[in-house]
Amino acid sequence: MSSTGVFVVDRLIEKFKRLPGVGEKGARRFAFFVLQQPSGWVEDLARDLLEAKTAVRPCRICGGLAEEELCPICADPKRSNGIICVVETVEDSLVIERHGVFDGRYHVLGGRFSPLDGEEIPSDRLDALRRRLVQEGVSEVILALNPSVEGELTAMAVRDAIVDLPVRVTRLAFGIPVGGSIGFVDSATLKLAMEGRRGL
Amino acid sequence: MSSTGVFVVDRLIEKFKRLPGVGEKGARRFAFFVLQQPSGWVEDLARDLLEAKTAVRPCRICGGLAEEELCPICADPKRSNGIICVVETVEDSLVIERHGVFDGRYHVLGGRFSPLDGEEIPSDRLDALRRRLVQEGVSEVILALNPSVEGELTAMAVRDAIVDLPVRVTRLAFGIPVGGSIGFVDSATLKLAMEGRRGL
Repeated sequence: MSSTGVFVVDRLIEKFKRLPGVGEKGARRFAFFVLQQPSGWVEDLARDLLEAKTAVRPCRICGGLAEEELCPICADPKRSNGIICVVETVEDSLVIERHGVFDGRYHVLGGRFSPLDGEEIPSDRLDALRRRLVQEGVSEVILALNPSVEGELTAMAVRDAIVDLPVRVTRLAFGIPVGGSIGFVDSATLKLAMEGRRGL
Repeated sequence: MSSTGVFVVDRLIEKFKRLPGVGEKGARRFAFFVLQQPSGWVEDLARDLLEAKTAVRPCRICGGLAEEELCPICADPKRSNGIICVVETVEDSLVIERHGVFDGRYHVLGGRFSPLDGEEIPSDRLDALRRRLVQEGVSEVILALNPSVEGELTAMAVRDAIVDLPVRVTRLAFGIPVGGSIGFVDSATLKLAMEGRRGL
C-alpha cells in the first residue's frame, strides 16, 4: 500500500513504518522529509543510527545506557551511594532523572514484565541486583514500578528476591496527582490515596 | 531536554525530533526502538536513507520521484497520453495514484505555494509546463490543487500561464464528501456544492 513506484523510497517507507506509533501516512511524511533534507543531514542521521547501535552497550553495574564500561550516572562520584532506584526500563530511569527528584543510583531490570502472562523477571537479573546490594552495602531500594497489576507483581518478585538482606524496600507513593481533581480521579487511584493517607 | 547522558543517543534523539510531527517523547521512543533492533535492521535503515537520498532525483518530464531519468509513471507506455494532472507536490500525486482514479500523467509544480505571502510559482516551472503541453499535444490539464485560498490562487496562476494554448483546463470538483452529511459540512463546502450543482 505504500508504493511510490520508486523502489528505494518504498523500502525506506517500510522501515519507517516499523517505528513505534508510525503508520502509513507518518512513514511517508518521514520519507519525503528525508528526501528534502540536505545530503549532509541524511548522512549524519545514517551515521548516528549506526553509532548509537554499535557504541551503546549496557552499563556493567546498573544495566543503563553506556558508551564506556559505566553509564554516566554510575560513573558520577557525586551521586549518593547506598540508595538504589529499581526501574523496569532505561526509559523509566531517564524520566525520573529528567525530573531531578532522585540523586542516588539506578538499577534497570531490563524490560516490562508481565508475570500474569508467564513473563517473570529472569532470575539472573534478580541475582545481579542481590549481588550489587551486598557489594555496595545499599541501605534502601526504591521500587519505581508502574501502578498496574504487572508492576505490583514485579515489585513483589523483586522484594521476595531481596527480603532476607538488611535493606529497606520502599515503593513510590500512589495517590492523587498534584493539580489533579478528586472529581476526576479514577477509583483505583482514589483507593490507593485513601490507603496511603498521612497524619497532618 | 532530551539528555540521556549518552552522547550518541542524544544526538540521535535530536535528529528524530526534526522529523515532521515528532516531539521529544516520540524521538526518544524511536531512539530506544532503534537500540533494541538487531544490528542488521539498523544497518539496512542507514543504507536505505543514504540510497534514497542519493538515488532519487526528479523525473525529467514531470518532476516526480525517479530512480532513472524518468519516473515509473512517465516511463509507463500504458498510461493515457494527452491528459495531465497538475499537483503541487509528489505526495499529492501519490495520493491520487493510490486511489486509482486517474490513468493519465502528472505534472508536479514542486511545492505548496502561498501567493498571498508572496510565494509565487517560479516562472520556470510554469514555462516547463507550457513546453510540455505543446510538445505532447496535451488536450486537457486537470488542476488537482487544494480547496483553499492558496490552492485557488495557484490554480489561477497556472491557468493564466497556459490560457492561450488549445488546452482544456479543468479542476477537481468540490462538494459534499461521499458519506458526509449536510448537517456537518462547513459553509464554504456547502456553497461550492451549491454552485457546482448538476441537473438530474
